[in-house]
Amino acid sequence: MTAITEANVAAARTLLAELTLDEKVDMIHAAGLFRTEGVPRLGIPPFKMDDGPMGPREELHNDNWAPLYNTRDRVTYLPSGSAVASTWNRDLAHKAGQVLGAEARGRGKDVILGPSINIKRSPLCGRNFEYMSEDPYLTGEQGVAFVKGVQESDVAACAKHYAANSQETDRLEVDETISERALREIYLPAFEDVVKRGGVLSLMGAYNLVNGEQCCESKRLLDDILRGEWGFRGFVVSDWSAVKRTVASARVGLDVEMSVTPNFDEYYFANPLRKAVQNGEVDEVDIDAKVLRVLAVMDALHMLPAYGEHGEHGAENTARKPGSYATLAHAQAALDVARESIVLLKNEADDQGHTLLPLDEHSMRRVLVVGANADRIHSSGGGSAVIKALHEVTPILGLNGQLGGNVEIEYALGYDAKQVVQDDSWQEDSLENSVDSAADDAERAAHLREEAVSLAREYAASGDPVIFVGGLDHEYDLEGRDRENLQLPYGQDALIEALLEVNPNTILVFVAGSPVAMPWADCARAIVWNWYNGCESGTALAETLLGRVNPSGHLPETFPMALEDSPAHSIGTFGPGLHVRYDEDIFVGYRHYETEHVPVLFPFGHGLGYTTFDYSACDVRLVDDEVRLAFTVTNTGKRAGKAVPQVYFGLEGTGESRPIKELRGFTKVELQPGESRQIELVLDAARALRYWSNESGAYALAPAAHVYVGESVADIRLTGFLAACEAADSDQSKDGMAITA
Amino acid sequence: MTAITEANVAAARTLLAELTLDEKVDMIHAAGLFRTEGVPRLGIPPFKMDDGPMGPREELHNDNWAPLYNTRDRVTYLPSGSAVASTWNRDLAHKAGQVLGAEARGRGKDVILGPSINIKRSPLCGRNFEYMSEDPYLTGEQGVAFVKGVQESDVAACAKHYAANSQETDRLEVDETISERALREIYLPAFEDVVKRGGVLSLMGAYNLVNGEQCCESKRLLDDILRGEWGFRGFVVSDWSAVKRTVASARVGLDVEMSVTPNFDEYYFANPLRKAVQNGEVDEVDIDAKVLRVLAVMDALHMLPAYGEHGEHGAENTARKPGSYATLAHAQAALDVARESIVLLKNEADDQGHTLLPLDEHSMRRVLVVGANADRIHSSGGGSAVIKALHEVTPILGLNGQLGGNVEIEYALGYDAKQVVQDDSWQEDSLENSVDSAADDAERAAHLREEAVSLAREYAASGDPVIFVGGLDHEYDLEGRDRENLQLPYGQDALIEALLEVNPNTILVFVAGSPVAMPWADCARAIVWNWYNGCESGTALAETLLGRVNPSGHLPETFPMALEDSPAHSIGTFGPGLHVRYDEDIFVGYRHYETEHVPVLFPFGHGLGYTTFDYSACDVRLVDDEVRLAFTVTNTGKRAGKAVPQVYFGLEGTGESRPIKELRGFTKVELQPGESRQIELVLDAARALRYWSNESGAYALAPAAHVYVGESVADIRLTGFLAACEAADSDQSKDGMAITA
Repeated sequence: MTAITEANVAAARTLLAELTLDEKVDMIHAAGLFRTEGVPRLGIPPFKMDDGPMGPREELHNDNWAPLYNTRDRVTYLPSGSAVASTWNRDLAHKAGQVLGAEARGRGKDVILGPSINIKRSPLCGRNFEYMSEDPYLTGEQGVAFVKGVQESDVAACAKHYAANSQETDRLEVDETISERALREIYLPAFEDVVKRGGVLSLMGAYNLVNGEQCCESKRLLDDILRGEWGFRGFVVSDWSAVKRTVASARVGLDVEMSVTPNFDEYYFANPLRKAVQNGEVDEVDIDAKVLRVLAVMDALHMLPAYGEHGEHGAENTARKPGSYATLAHAQAALDVARESIVLLKNEADDQGHTLLPLDEHSMRRVLVVGANADRIHSSGGGSAVIKALHEVTPILGLNGQLGGNVEIEYALGYDAKQVVQDDSWQEDSLENSVDSAADDAERAAHLREEAVSLAREYAASGDPVIFVGGLDHEYDLEGRDRENLQLPYGQDALIEALLEVNPNTILVFVAGSPVAMPWADCARAIVWNWYNGCESGTALAETLLGRVNPSGHLPETFPMALEDSPAHSIGTFGPGLHVRYDEDIFVGYRHYETEHVPVLFPFGHGLGYTTFDYSACDVRLVDDEVRLAFTVTNTGKRAGKAVPQVYFGLEGTGESRPIKELRGFTKVELQPGESRQIELVLDAARALRYWSNESGAYALAPAAHVYVGESVADIRLTGFLAACEAADSDQSKDGMAITA
Repeated sequence: MTAITEANVAAARTLLAELTLDEKVDMIHAAGLFRTEGVPRLGIPPFKMDDGPMGPREELHNDNWAPLYNTRDRVTYLPSGSAVASTWNRDLAHKAGQVLGAEARGRGKDVILGPSINIKRSPLCGRNFEYMSEDPYLTGEQGVAFVKGVQESDVAACAKHYAANSQETDRLEVDETISERALREIYLPAFEDVVKRGGVLSLMGAYNLVNGEQCCESKRLLDDILRGEWGFRGFVVSDWSAVKRTVASARVGLDVEMSVTPNFDEYYFANPLRKAVQNGEVDEVDIDAKVLRVLAVMDALHMLPAYGEHGEHGAENTARKPGSYATLAHAQAALDVARESIVLLKNEADDQGHTLLPLDEHSMRRVLVVGANADRIHSSGGGSAVIKALHEVTPILGLNGQLGGNVEIEYALGYDAKQVVQDDSWQEDSLENSVDSAADDAERAAHLREEAVSLAREYAASGDPVIFVGGLDHEYDLEGRDRENLQLPYGQDALIEALLEVNPNTILVFVAGSPVAMPWADCARAIVWNWYNGCESGTALAETLLGRVNPSGHLPETFPMALEDSPAHSIGTFGPGLHVRYDEDIFVGYRHYETEHVPVLFPFGHGLGYTTFDYSACDVRLVDDEVRLAFTVTNTGKRAGKAVPQVYFGLEGTGESRPIKELRGFTKVELQPGESRQIELVLDAARALRYWSNESGAYALAPAAHVYVGESVADIRLTGFLAACEAADSDQSKDGMAITA
């Protein structure tokens, strides 16, 4: 783990002493859209940053957003954060981070702006595809592994956006009222994890306000909690234009101001800051603290001239690791992640016990593929997560590439993703069109649909497979704009219903970064969820459909039946308005659905495979500071597969209203057919039993907990109860209460 | 080896008996730009073909040349034929063929139009980048391995263009007068090899005429030699529009007519052929012979319904292998080939014994890259070899991707490859421009050059590396047009001279498919030759420059000092004119330069590495029908590397004027530093000693031969002499003469 050491701070302090005020100021605001200024006379380089987290963004001009148009900034397109989380595999999160770090370093960057670890409060958030989960534990675990991977290449990860940037609507101005408990249990813990356990070297201050304070001006967030409580020694960079005032941000631990315009000298932390120091409005000590943090991170990344031992300025520190990018090894890593991120949502057996998936490639003669997302490139969109990918395998290319030759693959567009047709949410836009144009659109949509449905009918008659590949795209999963509803765009629902009517065996695949409503779900036999899954997305999808890969992804968020069911929306506290109250408190995602017994489309943690697992012999006990769980998982099916045992706690005895289940542990284990394995999980009791006590205004430990082990929050296979008792320092036999499963 | 068996012919004969004349005719001419018609009632599918050989071409409309514009026809971009040959590694030629076959099969093709195995008679030929070598033995060896690889996927390779399509100028009409000896020793043997030893299932008839006969009407080429002498049982397809007359082609072994226009029913082998049969001008027996060959190949590819055993029509033969394309494994194979194809032409040591290459990546701080080819995509051009590549790593991307982070890579275009500037050969074009525009061009060229030269001067001062990446592109290496001279285009010579003047340590890299003149070669210390090297071209180049890969490519053709030196040009028998006399006879390429002692820029077989090899202890003897060579190769340097021992014969006692050296064997062997290995090569004496006797008008065996073992045709390390003596059937001790090295 890269972390800032006393030696780093000492080296930074030595350099700091030599800097003039002008030089210090230059180091803490942008001198380019993605860089600060260095101090050449002392060998201090600029800090070069780049958008992530699916790969370093293409090279832009220093002072405008136009690209450089060359071939040298093509990179490996990594699966999105939602896909990484969906693997429930820390090793893969680590591997994705390693690739991102190596690629960023290879591209000459010092800071890569990721991972994105905000909590998915609403399924509508435009940036949910970047974010990991509605759950802070899963986000924290995958975030920590990812950050460690990134920073192995002597590049700083930048966890964003601190804090609670969980909506895009009015993100530049919205003030979120969030209870201390919700902050402490839901919105902050993943940041706490990447700081305390991930050693993250930088954080990005969010655009929004929390409880009346700009995040980039918040002493409470930046100084008291981040530095005071968590011991963070890295730097905080503002989101691009998130600093709004010089003095207010200068006096707190917001260290580097970045923004979107080329008038760098007029940034709040440029000339105005210099003046504020000269006026006495800002103490130079505050500037020093920022520069010290910047320098300490630079030293930790081996960016600074070697001081101390050699005593010479300018002698470059050659210990910095080199990077690499756009390599086959990185593409392979992207494929490894994608293979485990795909979620098999439904795979219903017929009366004879047959499922539609996996497809039997040996008996297939032809397959019909329908839907715009089968043939669509996604790397080129999304906002700051946009990638200039060296390559991207689409679903249709993946299917062809893997199946080609003996299987004829027919393709019908089915709907037009470039035009908005018969979609109520877009009525306003449609009304802007001329009546003629709308009629043309409707005619085209009807034609496309009829063509696809007619083919699907023919395939139904011959018994050949039909695969629909739809979902969202980066017109919907997009930075800066939240979706308006859960409905599939482009008239897909009507098409899917028509397909299922003529061919009930239609396999439904969705490429998307956030949940959609599935009003036809009961009629569908097989539903596959594919995220924006990186350069080898189509390969992994094809391998999964064909059973060469046994799916092992699990949902990192709940798919609700309807938007109104979801906690923030059920109480009308999401969306427009410059003031949003997070009144659902800690009851975010499954914490709400489970506790309130609200039926969902697919629960948190859900994910099927082509085999089945049995759980047995659960034992849970408290030993010293550790909760020790042991249970046995058996592969009861006919294929090797990976199980994801999930451990939920229902804290008891807190005297406060709490969720009945909260994720506290998980692992992923591969089992051969018939194989049984005993799984032992050791949880830090202080973390597993921790809750924020409204009463005391501090964290406390629950005295007891229900313990659940299952394959999703709703599919619990083992239950137990844990009662904490005082553990004697040296007596390991003083166990907690053992549990019957 | 896929080959046509008696069973295939029997199956074909059974089906043939059921076909009507109309059905037969449908099967032997195009029903689409890249397919024939099948016979659905008998389960006979169409034959689907596609352009190769660097990967299956993108999908076009059936009846026009517009692409389909989707993502599903992106493929792995393989190194060109010249690069494959340059590896001197049969295993890699085989691997390249395997990838091409799997990709073609994956794309649903039955016939892939490659390899291109015409002999490089002139360095100007526009298709030389596709062709392998100026030498028939090297072409044959690599061609056989390639064909075998392709056909492992139940796809027919199609060796092209039969015969002697060694120029593009007037290729549709040119009549080549070629002596029987030159045909038999130079232009036909590679075709003979892929037929007899490669089992190739199809050949493509060339556009040109040979000795007054259209290739697609030549009884001598198609019937007497191909079928009669070589025993070919596959089919011959015409180049696209190479059939010129119905009856003349129908009466000989030209089996399938393809062309470029959509009026398929009016093709010579369509309605006109039907009429010719009805008129009695063509005997239906001739049609039957063609259809039989087509069906036999289909059966060999497992394309036909199972007959015989099961006795049922329509029961599909499921033994046909599936394909795959656009996979990471294929990209890795392309990289493997590229790594061994790059030729280190020059790497001169300075007074201290230091060479410029390999670069020391650990001491490098920055590198300057100059030249348009550093940043240029080549897969998208070249004619029928064009590829819609899933990805292509350019040199600048490869260098960045491998070196990134600790090394700053600066790039200067240096010259503008989109405009023709100060290049005499293009004067005519330039004159067409307005004077103003020419002045603008000259100003831009001067600016670009000055920018690059000024940077190179600065790098010379600091001792940092400068890499020029120039060469040709598919405006020059292009089907349908030969180059006009050997000069580098776009004013590169002037730029290179200026670079070498300010920075004698400039490393010169050329991406090109055919030789260029290098008037500045004496002043250059390091010259690297990179072909059109597939999707991982830039990666392999970077690895080579950095010494992670020790170059082991060797030139498959001579680089002459000047065009006038090259055999066809020295006697003025290349180029325009509808009649071209191949008067240099068998003295093509090095056969001319060596025999006439003409100095060359780089000899055939030349290729340096980062280590050196010693050769010793040569023994050569004739045992029964085999020439057995044994010698020892020792790696005398400090890096592992791959040696390419080349065996040349100088046939003696033939009574005719002959080349003093002709390639008769080679191998490739990897040796660790200090390692010695005894190499044993066994050559078929009937092949090694064979020559075409002008006197007898037949092949004969030379009674003796000088034997040379070296690292190029000009760098001979061991010599010997072999005299044939009658070998007793059972007495293996009766050796040929042993040799002193």
